[in-house]
Amino acid sequence: MTYCVGLRLRAGLVMLSDTRTNAGVDNIARFKKMQVFEDAGERSICILAAGNLSVTQSVIAQLEADIDHVRAGGRGECILTTETIYSAALLAGQVMRDIQQRDSSSIMAQGAAADATLLFGGQRRGGELRLFQIYSAGNFIEAGDDTPYLQIGEHKYGKPILDRVIRPETTIEEAIKAVLVSMDSTLRSNLSVGMPLDLCVIRGGELSHKELRIEADHPEFRQISDSWAASLRQAFNNLPNIKI
Amino acid sequence: MTYCVGLRLRAGLVMLSDTRTNAGVDNIARFKKMQVFEDAGERSICILAAGNLSVTQSVIAQLEADIDHVRAGGRGECILTTETIYSAALLAGQVMRDIQQRDSSSIMAQGAAADATLLFGGQRRGGELRLFQIYSAGNFIEAGDDTPYLQIGEHKYGKPILDRVIRPETTIEEAIKAVLVSMDSTLRSNLSVGMPLDLCVIRGGELSHKELRIEADHPEFRQISDSWAASLRQAFNNLPNIKI
Repeated sequence: MTYCVGLRLRAGLVMLSDTRTNAGVDNIARFKKMQVFEDAGERSICILAAGNLSVTQSVIAQLEADIDHVRAGGRGECILTTETIYSAALLAGQVMRDIQQRDSSSIMAQGAAADATLLFGGQRRGGELRLFQIYSAGNFIEAGDDTPYLQIGEHKYGKPILDRVIRPETTIEEAIKAVLVSMDSTLRSNLSVGMPLDLCVIRGGELSHKELRIEADHPEFRQISDSWAASLRQAFNNLPNIKI
Repeated sequence: MTYCVGLRLRAGLVMLSDTRTNAGVDNIARFKKMQVFEDAGERSICILAAGNLSVTQSVIAQLEADIDHVRAGGRGECILTTETIYSAALLAGQVMRDIQQRDSSSIMAQGAAADATLLFGGQRRGGELRLFQIYSAGNFIEAGDDTPYLQIGEHKYGKPILDRVIRPETTIEEAIKAVLVSMDSTLRSNLSVGMPLDLCVIRGGELSHKELRIEADHPEFRQISDSWAASLRQAFNNLPNIKI
């Protein structure tokens, strides 16, 4: 499985993914699930992927091929040239639909699941920060102020902390801590989600991204994980007793 | 849906269930999912149920009917008369299997799910504290020192806190707080789990139970919920920043 989370805040986009994939518990591997597509100063897009790896890799490969084609002077559009981020998400949704149409019945005939979902976040020059969740059918939903975050994969373990702390006005620094704590809870409770992590931040208006690979021995991540565990224990000890 | 959790500690059994059931989001109701069967001083058993309500109610009704039958001098056994708690769980598993055989194909023919699971915890005079999770097929697993808790229904939201604080030597008082915090996180993140709650404690060797219905305005539960939220916020504020 996978756990990916994306936040659309006033200050920017914060996206985090793990790197574990598994076909059964005896076939575990490490794949990057985060891809950044950027035309610096013009637009920056970050895509996180969950679900059938052959499907999500095919979608990413096709999006890359389209970019190469357009950059080489070919006709048509790619996610870096559409008028808006919304149209870029539409395009990614169409690619998802095409791959599903090509592959899903054969995959399912083998008894495997072809489901795949993407978190698609980005900003173009002159546009707003946008964050979409694209489904297997190519349709999508968008994060807004009421729900500023989207999750794909093993999302339940790490949802409570996001529900408690994430607001549209949350700062990037707070948001990074929140997604890391959300991931930390998921890592502890579900073996199918694993280190290392990939973190991407696209600050509003910068039209470029910052990316960080967080390995298991990353000192600040370890500190966050340990400090959170200790604080929870202390918070827990301070709770009042219930009489029964 | 449902969220039920049971702990098997050195000190006793702690079991907690919500009361929300739903057939679609437009058909929400309140049903007690906790049943206690007791022959005080001899044995005490607490059963929590998740899944198809018609199935779990049928199982409970049959277990009650068997008890009535035996108490009226009828032949055969019931969960209060089997030699051990293990045999009582076997008996409940057999009832589950019988009900599934009778009902599940018709339920599934209507497009509904017949899955059901039980947490079955108890102690008999002279025996150990036991806690089982009984599946739709009537088979079951048992909690042990390595994993002293079992969950059924919407278990993922509330799992991280249990992983962090529950050990076999956890006291009953701490355990009650832990299951309430686990439930609180689930209630905040999943609408299909709802107040009021039912809490049952069977202390080791007492062979009797204590039960508490916790309504939404229960003052200590509100205090736990609010204090936990405030502590998490504070713990969160104290986390170190990650540079990117």
